[in-house]
Amino acid sequence: MQDTHAWSGRFSEPVSELVKKYTASVGFDYRLAPFDIDGSLAHAAMLHRAGVLSDDDLSAIRRGMAEILDDIRAGRFEWRLDLEDVHMNIERRLTDKIGDAGKRLHTGRSRNDQVATDIRLWLRDQIDLIGGLVGELQTALLDLAEQHAETAMPGFTHLQVAQPVTFGHHLLAYVEMLARDAERLADCRKRVNRLPLGAAALAGTTYPIDRHYTAELLGFDDVCQNSLDAVSDRDFAIEFCAAASLVMTHLSRLSEELVLWMSPSVGFIDIADRFCTGSSIMPQKKNPDVPELVRGKSGRVSGHLVGLLMLMKSQPLAYNKDNQEDKEPLFDTADTLVDTLRIYADMMRGITVKPAAMRRAVLQGFATATDLADYLVKKGLPFRDSHEVVARAVRHAEQRGVDLADLPLADLQSFSPLVAEDIYAVLTPEGSLAQRDHVGGTAPNQVRAQIARWRSR
Amino acid sequence: MQDTHAWSGRFSEPVSELVKKYTASVGFDYRLAPFDIDGSLAHAAMLHRAGVLSDDDLSAIRRGMAEILDDIRAGRFEWRLDLEDVHMNIERRLTDKIGDAGKRLHTGRSRNDQVATDIRLWLRDQIDLIGGLVGELQTALLDLAEQHAETAMPGFTHLQVAQPVTFGHHLLAYVEMLARDAERLADCRKRVNRLPLGAAALAGTTYPIDRHYTAELLGFDDVCQNSLDAVSDRDFAIEFCAAASLVMTHLSRLSEELVLWMSPSVGFIDIADRFCTGSSIMPQKKNPDVPELVRGKSGRVSGHLVGLLMLMKSQPLAYNKDNQEDKEPLFDTADTLVDTLRIYADMMRGITVKPAAMRRAVLQGFATATDLADYLVKKGLPFRDSHEVVARAVRHAEQRGVDLADLPLADLQSFSPLVAEDIYAVLTPEGSLAQRDHVGGTAPNQVRAQIARWRSR
Amino acid sequence: MQDTHAWSGRFSEPVSELVKKYTASVGFDYRLAPFDIDGSLAHAAMLHRAGVLSDDDLSAIRRGMAEILDDIRAGRFEWRLDLEDVHMNIERRLTDKIGDAGKRLHTGRSRNDQVATDIRLWLRDQIDLIGGLVGELQTALLDLAEQHAETAMPGFTHLQVAQPVTFGHHLLAYVEMLARDAERLADCRKRVNRLPLGAAALAGTTYPIDRHYTAELLGFDDVCQNSLDAVSDRDFAIEFCAAASLVMTHLSRLSEELVLWMSPSVGFIDIADRFCTGSSIMPQKKNPDVPELVRGKSGRVSGHLVGLLMLMKSQPLAYNKDNQEDKEPLFDTADTLVDTLRIYADMMRGITVKPAAMRRAVLQGFATATDLADYLVKKGLPFRDSHEVVARAVRHAEQRGVDLADLPLADLQSFSPLVAEDIYAVLTPEGSLAQRDHVGGTAPNQVRAQIARWRSR
Amino acid sequence: MQDTHAWSGRFSEPVSELVKKYTASVGFDYRLAPFDIDGSLAHAAMLHRAGVLSDDDLSAIRRGMAEILDDIRAGRFEWRLDLEDVHMNIERRLTDKIGDAGKRLHTGRSRNDQVATDIRLWLRDQIDLIGGLVGELQTALLDLAEQHAETAMPGFTHLQVAQPVTFGHHLLAYVEMLARDAERLADCRKRVNRLPLGAAALAGTTYPIDRHYTAELLGFDDVCQNSLDAVSDRDFAIEFCAAASLVMTHLSRLSEELVLWMSPSVGFIDIADRFCTGSSIMPQKKNPDVPELVRGKSGRVSGHLVGLLMLMKSQPLAYNKDNQEDKEPLFDTADTLVDTLRIYADMMRGITVKPAAMRRAVLQGFATATDLADYLVKKGLPFRDSHEVVARAVRHAEQRGVDLADLPLADLQSFSPLVAEDIYAVLTPEGSLAQRDHVGGTAPNQVRAQIARWRSR
Repeated sequence: MQDTHAWSGRFSEPVSELVKKYTASVGFDYRLAPFDIDGSLAHAAMLHRAGVLSDDDLSAIRRGMAEILDDIRAGRFEWRLDLEDVHMNIERRLTDKIGDAGKRLHTGRSRNDQVATDIRLWLRDQIDLIGGLVGELQTALLDLAEQHAETAMPGFTHLQVAQPVTFGHHLLAYVEMLARDAERLADCRKRVNRLPLGAAALAGTTYPIDRHYTAELLGFDDVCQNSLDAVSDRDFAIEFCAAASLVMTHLSRLSEELVLWMSPSVGFIDIADRFCTGSSIMPQKKNPDVPELVRGKSGRVSGHLVGLLMLMKSQPLAYNKDNQEDKEPLFDTADTLVDTLRIYADMMRGITVKPAAMRRAVLQGFATATDLADYLVKKGLPFRDSHEVVARAVRHAEQRGVDLADLPLADLQSFSPLVAEDIYAVLTPEGSLAQRDHVGGTAPNQVRAQIARWRSR
Repeated sequence: MQDTHAWSGRFSEPVSELVKKYTASVGFDYRLAPFDIDGSLAHAAMLHRAGVLSDDDLSAIRRGMAEILDDIRAGRFEWRLDLEDVHMNIERRLTDKIGDAGKRLHTGRSRNDQVATDIRLWLRDQIDLIGGLVGELQTALLDLAEQHAETAMPGFTHLQVAQPVTFGHHLLAYVEMLARDAERLADCRKRVNRLPLGAAALAGTTYPIDRHYTAELLGFDDVCQNSLDAVSDRDFAIEFCAAASLVMTHLSRLSEELVLWMSPSVGFIDIADRFCTGSSIMPQKKNPDVPELVRGKSGRVSGHLVGLLMLMKSQPLAYNKDNQEDKEPLFDTADTLVDTLRIYADMMRGITVKPAAMRRAVLQGFATATDLADYLVKKGLPFRDSHEVVARAVRHAEQRGVDLADLPLADLQSFSPLVAEDIYAVLTPEGSLAQRDHVGGTAPNQVRAQIARWRSR
Repeated sequence: MQDTHAWSGRFSEPVSELVKKYTASVGFDYRLAPFDIDGSLAHAAMLHRAGVLSDDDLSAIRRGMAEILDDIRAGRFEWRLDLEDVHMNIERRLTDKIGDAGKRLHTGRSRNDQVATDIRLWLRDQIDLIGGLVGELQTALLDLAEQHAETAMPGFTHLQVAQPVTFGHHLLAYVEMLARDAERLADCRKRVNRLPLGAAALAGTTYPIDRHYTAELLGFDDVCQNSLDAVSDRDFAIEFCAAASLVMTHLSRLSEELVLWMSPSVGFIDIADRFCTGSSIMPQKKNPDVPELVRGKSGRVSGHLVGLLMLMKSQPLAYNKDNQEDKEPLFDTADTLVDTLRIYADMMRGITVKPAAMRRAVLQGFATATDLADYLVKKGLPFRDSHEVVARAVRHAEQRGVDLADLPLADLQSFSPLVAEDIYAVLTPEGSLAQRDHVGGTAPNQVRAQIARWRSR
Repeated sequence: MQDTHAWSGRFSEPVSELVKKYTASVGFDYRLAPFDIDGSLAHAAMLHRAGVLSDDDLSAIRRGMAEILDDIRAGRFEWRLDLEDVHMNIERRLTDKIGDAGKRLHTGRSRNDQVATDIRLWLRDQIDLIGGLVGELQTALLDLAEQHAETAMPGFTHLQVAQPVTFGHHLLAYVEMLARDAERLADCRKRVNRLPLGAAALAGTTYPIDRHYTAELLGFDDVCQNSLDAVSDRDFAIEFCAAASLVMTHLSRLSEELVLWMSPSVGFIDIADRFCTGSSIMPQKKNPDVPELVRGKSGRVSGHLVGLLMLMKSQPLAYNKDNQEDKEPLFDTADTLVDTLRIYADMMRGITVKPAAMRRAVLQGFATATDLADYLVKKGLPFRDSHEVVARAVRHAEQRGVDLADLPLADLQSFSPLVAEDIYAVLTPEGSLAQRDHVGGTAPNQVRAQIARWRSR
């Protein structure tokens, strides 16, 4: 009976069943299969050019791999636990199909550099997918922002009403965050897109390989310059998870706001029924499940980041089996991002905005007190003194239970003789918004300018 | 066409397919099924005693549930994504089987308290399983320690040779750590084992329920005393993951040592072939994959802990959908612990110890320098002065490339006139070991006493 | 010139200044001083009883230590960086004061077991302090809950109005959480309160020490049973940080609610001015800084937990210098808890509750829909069918813009003929609250019973 | 009596002492002072150009700020807790010095955008400092690598001997890792180097500010395009901590190796005495404290990363007090990096390499087994078959207790008739090394080529 393992020659007893199950990775790394095949085909082409593989070998490998890929895509491929991982499963099948040419494919490489290559190819693919989804969510946000470039809502700090902002301006804050997220992913991609293949087990190989040619075939920007580093580091995966954690952090912030805005006391928005669920016991309930789950999933992704950091911590060079634990958190991180971004863009298109409720809330919290202070400064009072004057006026209005704009002129003048009739133009939400008219400010024409800037990109 | 959801009466459009997939939990919470059924049966018995369910209802529910449990165990139960979760899948099937009695089962409860009950029942079961496995690993360690109660090895601090210890003593350190882990799990179990059922959605219910009776039927020690707390907190799950992280931390420490001890430069042990794997490229390799994976998995479990802490952070009361994210990390944490403990106990029985290599290493690092210092102290020198004397003697021996025990008496006396011929008895590993003869010390008879103490428990 | 280090005899060059600064711990471990002295005095008493120290030695040590403690308390003690840590600073000063007796104090111990003892003594002290503060916060919550045992507020799930609860009931949820936190701290204390002293460097000592006597003098419950474990593990510190993270998680949840409740759209409470701050630019602002900081600090404490888990991960036995990094996160965790609990109890006494706003919010969200469903069930409808009926009634009321209680009887009867005139008694908040009258339910008399239960403890 | 706070006009009671202490940040943000002053001077220059400040105001502000900076640098500046933070401390002092011009400085800004600007200026400065230190450490590694471009050592995978590598090649792996770390820091710097000032509290300001001019004066690449985002996000700080965690992860890996290499069983290197410490009890000890502490500090930095992620998780826009908690972890992260990189470069220059011990270890683990396999492949055997042949040969040699190179030709030929006399050239370390001669391989001339590549940058 032939043992199935690639390495069993020197072993005196077979691996126990429990160990097989504990150490096998094919239960999750099978999803690397298309990338594993791409990598093998490029490696074979390079070996052929280097004279290591014959024309016949190369043809056989290409034909065999095409069949295997078809089988995998059709769900016909049987993954065997006793063959440990995706690499051995595919290679064994190839050898079953084409004989010795299949055995020669592993020349000049090792599973250590092979898996590092597979993960990079897969992750590059995911980054490109995620980058596109970030863009789609930005577009959904821009569309909604455009409709509400003038819609006044309270800007909050400390969840207290601070100053009026437009709802469009508020949404654009998230467009900015997502833009930085996309930048980070693109920066990470540069470091992902370098070829480890050729590092072999850890030291390089004795065959006359041409790593730049393999890199070119696989679309890598460069080759990893040190074989020990190439097979052992996973910093690119950690960097990706850190970038992913920030995407989820940003979405958890927006989710927190959506949940809050849909709470009946606030009532700024409604989310379409198709994104909500009800209660098995309370018949009146309509729950914003999607943003709540997104908020919850931000912990999941940060948890994976921590897991990977701890994984690499103080590992000696070069490859250690610990590194097999990099895959599940990485896969789950990418999946979570893809699903979340996809559903989020869709959900943003299902949001109904309630401008009247937003405007009511603006008038509830002395949102234009800063405008009064600025008015006084423009009439010559130093800012700090003006701040004190307005604080007293607010306290007076609060005791009366009215807004600043509802105080009679005489009352306002009792706090400062600089106040004149024109003060009332400044104390409306629209007056306040229009005046914040500089790059980054909330004035409606600045919001429209920002939208135009984003549209042009 | 009847909508499948438990709550769809007030909704004007069905949930989108993407949302169904994103929000459904049945893909992972199906494993709670036996506990969900146990909980339902206890709830039904209580409702029956309270006069809410008739005799016929109760019989029907018991019969239906028994059939469902059979179907689940036989793999015949079809889990439907559009029924969201394990609870609705089972309840719908029950109603299909037994009609209105099935509909009445949900009286006086909600999925909020139902899921909280299921998780606690499941986790209690896992804690008991894990507690047993910790005990088995301790036994494996004790067995090995017993064989090596006298085997001298270098005790390291800073990975420098410090003083001789016995290998048995070294293993007992891990028995102690695991004992604390077991204590922590037992302490956690107390807080897990309280009944949330009866909290209903969040406020309790209007039916005349008897929560203490339900608790008794399910083996809970007590009931949760506040309904809002009962449905919303998951601190018991976080506590479990923290305890699990410590188990894994302890095992990652032992794993680090096994890997090190099996490295050829050290060569203290060999791990049986059945726990090791080879290399696809390097034919000579025999790799300690299992301890390396365990070391790596310690990051995974700590990552889950972080995910759960972040999940709960700043959630308002009571139940929020975020909490659905508690299950996957919790399940994976328990699975990882169960698999790891099981394989570890087995692996410890497959370790071959190499006492000669250990003894050689003791003699390599001036391990008995402290014994020389203590010798001088007992002859009247203050400890700090004695330390200085020995430091100079070590430096002298190091320059000569010999151990302290190899220096001629005259040399030793040149550092202190207090040294006499009897010094050589103190400078052997065995002499050093035997002298550390107090509770917790490494003397062989102390090691045996500790083993006896553990055996008697 | 005498070198200052305790170990410099075998070194050929002094430690570089940069290294001294990088490796010294006295900059933060000086706060262990009183515990270090307590530990030394107990060690000295034990050595004296064992015949290792003379009467004169013991007297001198006691006198010298008393002076040193006075100096430290008076701020007169000069901590020297070149003496590395708190232990060497104190021991050197002692020797300066009393000569050789001071040098003899280090007999039979090492800094490895000394520092482990100090941390445990300090942490035990902190746990007792924190346990008391948790109790004070519970008392503050109980006092407020007692005043509001009948005050109706909306109970939320998913931040949507679910069912009426009393504000007192809501506060009691946090009393429960804090009670579990206190349990966890008490459980942790058991594992902290074991004596490592006597483990010496790692293997025990050759002197005739009596560890149980030292343990008794220092109030430890037991001695650590394995010397390697005693000096190398810090699981008790990690367990403390995990328990602390849960305290902070609970307080971050309450903080989230306080911030939300004080937001003008919600307006359930006001926090006294002395716990709030204003804005340098917006004169009207009053910001709930304290709960926001508490929410933020929950991340800080969980971060420390992660730091410590990563610190221990895969460290070989026994002591490694890595462990010096345990102190700062541990100290900061305890400080954060102490400060936060203290200010929180004070702040809860400065909260003004606005029952009218709470009641308005109850009436805004169909909070009694479940009561209508239960009413129908009690008239014979299976719960699931009743749920559907009420869902349709809610949709009808929502379209009309009124609460369920505002629908005419005919309208309600159009959804189910089971409805009769007595339905209106069920649809008020007070009616709803009163009916949830079982252990853990929100009925006012249950709330009062819980408060009485807590008071009696 | 004048209240000290910038915002106290509307408050009816002073902030309690406990709250002052809990909420004040001046205890740690004082270190932002030079950056705060830079920011204020640029803001003043912009306000002057915009006509908001007069010539006299600007001169007074410049003069006052220069004096304040002198006072701070000389340690004469008294930081007052009751002035909360660095901003108010400096502004109040300025107003004390120059009167109303000082009060006018706060025109058109808020502490929200001011602190965001300060942190970015400070962090940019730290990134530049750290980038330089990374370069210095790379240089130290290159210098050592150059001396050992030909020194054979065992390359390990799974801490088992895998194949020979050169020590220079091994060190270059870390040069690569650090290069990616530097790339990440540079990428992060792009996102740090954008100006938030002008966002004011959250919505922009009503004054005619010119943000691009301020950005130019302060060396920012661009302005933040959305005011809400500018004051509320801290993703750049999290990104920095993630990059820092990777630096520390890489250094913890190298540290793990240094500790291991200095362990007497391995004995590959010695670290100069000035980077080591001894033991207070074991006179022979010389401990690699610095790498151990570095390893430990990797947890500290990852802990800060987690703290910051949790801090931002689900915060609603815009500024919340939670964000004050960003500073201490950020400061400590940068400090840890600066100190660690500085001491590490120095330490690498104090390492003594022991080539003989390295070579002995190469010969101990069948390191050239792969070379034998490759030899057979080149003679026509498929790789997988060759692997099997060599595995059996290794097993044979292991049973005899000799290296492959020590087996007689007949023995080798008994495993494969393809073996000829020339096999012995392949089985030496030098032969093995020389053959791995491609980009990234360990052949000495490849190592030298890599060093030359790095030197030229």
